[in-house]
Amino acid sequence: MIERIAILGTGLLGTSVGLALRAAGYRGAITGWNRSAERARVALDLGAIDSVAADPLQAARESQVVVLAVPIYATLDFMEKLAGVLGPDYLVTDVGSTKAQISAAAKRLFNTPERAAFLPGHPMAGKERGGAMLADAELFRGTVWLFTDDPERKRSPQSDELVKEWREWVVAMGAKIIDLGPARHDELVAWVSHLPQFVATALSALLEEEVGDAPELRDVGGRALSEMTRLGASPFSMWRDIAYTNTEAIQAALHALEQRLAHLRENLRTPELRDEFEKANRFRRE
Amino acid sequence: MIERIAILGTGLLGTSVGLALRAAGYRGAITGWNRSAERARVALDLGAIDSVAADPLQAARESQVVVLAVPIYATLDFMEKLAGVLGPDYLVTDVGSTKAQISAAAKRLFNTPERAAFLPGHPMAGKERGGAMLADAELFRGTVWLFTDDPERKRSPQSDELVKEWREWVVAMGAKIIDLGPARHDELVAWVSHLPQFVATALSALLEEEVGDAPELRDVGGRALSEMTRLGASPFSMWRDIAYTNTEAIQAALHALEQRLAHLRENLRTPELRDEFEKANRFRRE
Repeated sequence: MIERIAILGTGLLGTSVGLALRAAGYRGAITGWNRSAERARVALDLGAIDSVAADPLQAARESQVVVLAVPIYATLDFMEKLAGVLGPDYLVTDVGSTKAQISAAAKRLFNTPERAAFLPGHPMAGKERGGAMLADAELFRGTVWLFTDDPERKRSPQSDELVKEWREWVVAMGAKIIDLGPARHDELVAWVSHLPQFVATALSALLEEEVGDAPELRDVGGRALSEMTRLGASPFSMWRDIAYTNTEAIQAALHALEQRLAHLRENLRTPELRDEFEKANRFRRE
Repeated sequence: MIERIAILGTGLLGTSVGLALRAAGYRGAITGWNRSAERARVALDLGAIDSVAADPLQAARESQVVVLAVPIYATLDFMEKLAGVLGPDYLVTDVGSTKAQISAAAKRLFNTPERAAFLPGHPMAGKERGGAMLADAELFRGTVWLFTDDPERKRSPQSDELVKEWREWVVAMGAKIIDLGPARHDELVAWVSHLPQFVATALSALLEEEVGDAPELRDVGGRALSEMTRLGASPFSMWRDIAYTNTEAIQAALHALEQRLAHLRENLRTPELRDEFEKANRFRRE
């Protein structure tokens, strides 16, 4: 039974996990570590964690479940370090937005009878701005939490029990679990998550050049423009790792959209425009 | 003083104008006409109009202010017909999304001392689905209402007075007025309104092909995907006229975005990606 959780990284997601666990009735200990101790204290003040850890590896050793809530390359670094210090009665899980490299590292470093379990996870929740201050106990309610576990895993019974219980906590936090393979995961999120982000970034950057110096003209766009560029506020620091670890799938999705826009542009006065609107309408059918 | 208004077209915008006028304290008569009389009765039931007109030209003659709230080509048709039957004590205004052709027709057919006034208007408000059922007295609150009036107009004093009063009602409905030239209008809205729409349509149509047959995968995208494709539900019937009457400006905006996306695609692993995110962040600065 899970009684000690360490959250490494108390940004928006890590802090929200702490708050959501408490809201779901989790009564065990939650310790939190952040590269900036000051930010970890924000999570502490919000009640998402009940202690601030000075050393992430020691915090991991003193817990049963370690939640890695840091950018992808930082997650991969922690995986290397944690694999050497945690035994078969630990579970490590993460919330990273791409899963191929993390799942490969999990296969190489974890999930044997002698080692800790690693369950690669990806909650499809977030905000365009990060930080503990925006954390929300309801962030995962009604969203999908993806897992890309290894079907060939050979874990200890203790760690398998922790995995089972962690999945129950994810459901208790309000999310719906979908299991899929890491390659399929990365391809899917390239379309439904990364493509929308990069489109919003490109559109926002383009409009910054066109009308950025005339705020009254920005306002003309109203709600539609505001929505289509909201994700333009997303931080590079998070998306750099995603761009690096899912490059090919994102490139394919961007290229497909470029072609689609060119097709629209060439058919603004032909019946093809109707087909495109009707196809878009079908995607948004109730 | 305006006491008799005819709204020709009781869709989302026309019906919302009626509701907003009432909410702002307008106490005169409002008659409504719609190609489908059944839909006009929806506006009547909502209290947006207080009578359903059978003949739009007769309804116009019996009013002082005629609000054209139909697609752009239907607006141009009405302008031809109304110019012959309305004298210098009338005002005709519209809510069309492109203004070059409508403003040219206004110059040719209206705005002389012997003829009715025509004030080309464009409220930057709407929803992705149309129809009187979605009308809202608050639709224009906090939005911008663009006018592209002719600086060389030579109107009768009576019709000029109606223009002045209509502008006051627009402010009373909660909108902020911006005046600009029709060419500048069409270029501006190509960037801040038409481009976001066509991007949402292209993205939605593309995703319909990629994941449309797997609704559970659509759900994976969550709020971000939902927002970026909401406008995908917009009807072709309205956007066809916009595409036809602002083709070149929309093509230029689409082409610029295609190039921007290609630039992003080619720089997913270079420092250029940071520049693009920072530029997008600036567009979304508070």
